[in-house]
Amino acid sequence: MTDTDRGSNLAINGERLWDSLMRMAEIGALPGGGCRRLGLTPEDSAGRAMLVGWALENGYGVARDRIGNLFIRRPGTRPELAPVMMGSHLDTVVTGGRFDGVLGVLGGLEVLRTLDDAGVATERTLELVVWTNEEGARFAPGNTGAFAFAGKYTLEQALAHSDVDGTRVGDALQALGELGPEPVGGRPIEACFELHIEQGPYLERAAIPVGIVTGTYTVRYFNLTIAGQASHLAQPLTERRDAMVGMAEAILAIRRVGAAHGEQGRSNASWVKVFPNVRGTVAETVQMSCDVRHADPEVARAMAADLHASIEDASRRTGIAMTLDPFHQFGPVHFDGGLVELLRRTARSRGHQCQDILTVAGHDAIALAPIAPTAMIFVPSAAGLSHNEREYTDPAACAAGTDVLLHAVLAKAGRG
Amino acid sequence: MTDTDRGSNLAINGERLWDSLMRMAEIGALPGGGCRRLGLTPEDSAGRAMLVGWALENGYGVARDRIGNLFIRRPGTRPELAPVMMGSHLDTVVTGGRFDGVLGVLGGLEVLRTLDDAGVATERTLELVVWTNEEGARFAPGNTGAFAFAGKYTLEQALAHSDVDGTRVGDALQALGELGPEPVGGRPIEACFELHIEQGPYLERAAIPVGIVTGTYTVRYFNLTIAGQASHLAQPLTERRDAMVGMAEAILAIRRVGAAHGEQGRSNASWVKVFPNVRGTVAETVQMSCDVRHADPEVARAMAADLHASIEDASRRTGIAMTLDPFHQFGPVHFDGGLVELLRRTARSRGHQCQDILTVAGHDAIALAPIAPTAMIFVPSAAGLSHNEREYTDPAACAAGTDVLLHAVLAKAGRG
Repeated sequence: MTDTDRGSNLAINGERLWDSLMRMAEIGALPGGGCRRLGLTPEDSAGRAMLVGWALENGYGVARDRIGNLFIRRPGTRPELAPVMMGSHLDTVVTGGRFDGVLGVLGGLEVLRTLDDAGVATERTLELVVWTNEEGARFAPGNTGAFAFAGKYTLEQALAHSDVDGTRVGDALQALGELGPEPVGGRPIEACFELHIEQGPYLERAAIPVGIVTGTYTVRYFNLTIAGQASHLAQPLTERRDAMVGMAEAILAIRRVGAAHGEQGRSNASWVKVFPNVRGTVAETVQMSCDVRHADPEVARAMAADLHASIEDASRRTGIAMTLDPFHQFGPVHFDGGLVELLRRTARSRGHQCQDILTVAGHDAIALAPIAPTAMIFVPSAAGLSHNEREYTDPAACAAGTDVLLHAVLAKAGRG
Repeated sequence: MTDTDRGSNLAINGERLWDSLMRMAEIGALPGGGCRRLGLTPEDSAGRAMLVGWALENGYGVARDRIGNLFIRRPGTRPELAPVMMGSHLDTVVTGGRFDGVLGVLGGLEVLRTLDDAGVATERTLELVVWTNEEGARFAPGNTGAFAFAGKYTLEQALAHSDVDGTRVGDALQALGELGPEPVGGRPIEACFELHIEQGPYLERAAIPVGIVTGTYTVRYFNLTIAGQASHLAQPLTERRDAMVGMAEAILAIRRVGAAHGEQGRSNASWVKVFPNVRGTVAETVQMSCDVRHADPEVARAMAADLHASIEDASRRTGIAMTLDPFHQFGPVHFDGGLVELLRRTARSRGHQCQDILTVAGHDAIALAPIAPTAMIFVPSAAGLSHNEREYTDPAACAAGTDVLLHAVLAKAGRG
């Protein structure tokens, strides 16, 4: 048997992969079947500890960098070559599922284990990465570790991000023992792959098990501040500047912006903070997060302009001051053409139906794309539901995506 | 000089009253000139302690009952007679002012001090009461002490009310040392007066310094629960059940109910709790407080029916489940006809222009009305603003209201 034959016959162990997913789901388990492992909390750290335990059982190297990114390393036969990376995240949102992020990490672990089982060495070192705080559910914005690794933030900036109570990322990492000594980024990466669930309905609807992610939607986040006037509920309605009413008008205006731009239009109001928010007092101020998304960057730009105009209009109609400030943004990102084509070929040669797809959501791979050849593999989400306890991808689809990951990684890492 | 002459010549000390108001405002002072002394917090307790200090300086009796109501007593010459009460509250909302509640308490203190200065004894004991947790900003609903005193709640029920973190009223009172040994209510009260700021614009607009409160609006509070579906912001808009959008539709529907019922119509959404409320997840559920108010009980009943229909309609339009449950209610309350007439006569004979007025807001006096002859005196609020740091009533109006209180109390307590 030649190396090439041996490689092409390799098959991941779908049962072992599923078992690892279900075991990880026990950490921060919620009654509805989902998980809560907010980034930089004890649950997040417990999930990482379980992974580290499995890595050590297999004899892999374990390291952390100074923003807490966790690296599981299977050394190559030519360690002087740049490594091939696979990675995603283990943190979840408040009502998270069992697959978002986790599949990319445990799929990567399954790749390493499969190579061990078959006695296959690689020329290049394989690095399985758990990126710090992808979701940003506690510390916003997310992708802290990946963006710091890619140099979008300096280490000092990333460590200084804070949650709503003012706790800093750096202090939270320190308290959890998740801070390592390795420098953050600044080294060559041969290729970077992220396997992830789709978080939308398109693959399931088309009955396609594997999506080849060619790039991203264009996404613009804003902070909206609404400044009304506190008063007693006894105050006549016509004399109020009720920030709660301003918020309601803004939420519906935001919704209309997305709805006006067809199937690919997305617009969201997802976080609000009302002050003083007590029964008996007309609201004084509201802070909100909102965003617009579209596959076409020009349309996304138009949507952002519409959003500004709609908020100005809502402010004029209500007499309540509203200020819209840019917060965070990404896209359009085009993933590496060579890696995208490799993934397509790999999926076909492995017998998995696939189709090209764009990601509407943010991912760690998006942060990595500017500094390394990067691409993503999607698998279907049942009913397109994600960030929901009922998020589900069946074992066959998890295995298919991981199979594509294995053979693409092997192609880039080279048999050693 | 006869007793009658001496009584009619009595005048309160407006400067001393103002000074006491300004000193109380230093406790829990906010940068914008207002106060935050949430009920059953250390700030609330510190305000009470200052009052107790002043009471003890004057030799008044100080007692607390088992729900923390604080009684300052100036004994009458015939202690076997039922006392005359004056009272209000020292707790505030999150962005409270310096007058709401406080004026009724410190105006009462000024009445006692004025009688001391003039050497006037009363037949009936005078009781100045600080009612526990009027605002309900932390422990909802409010008027805990007054409603318990009046028997609307049993002591056990009142002590078991809890804040959003689950802390019980009883435990908070215990921790602050505000629980006393006296039984709660169950004793005769000859008359009960509450001096308060209007919290609306009508007296100021009419340039009338004293309002004689003949009764209340009818007020119906509801809890609204909105049950959507959590999902990723990548989910197509048409496939969502976004509880945040449901909330926006509900807030505007609530607003329309009040606006459809003229100058006297009030409808409010003042408290919301969004879950999970993070950037990146479509909201799953929202809980809200809302209420409708009108001077005419029949119209208020129609408004409540409109509210139900509007919420049902919003639920149908959005496809998001909404449930409206009654929470708390008051009114219509008609204050004691004899006391109302006494207040009118007293204001006129003391040279203060006055007019009849209804209260839109809830007050401790409303809780007391079923168990004792009760009435209220209003003084103007600048621009109708209350529950706002800029809440303001000028010294002359504070003094005018307190002057009416003094002479009405004296009329009911009798010179001893």
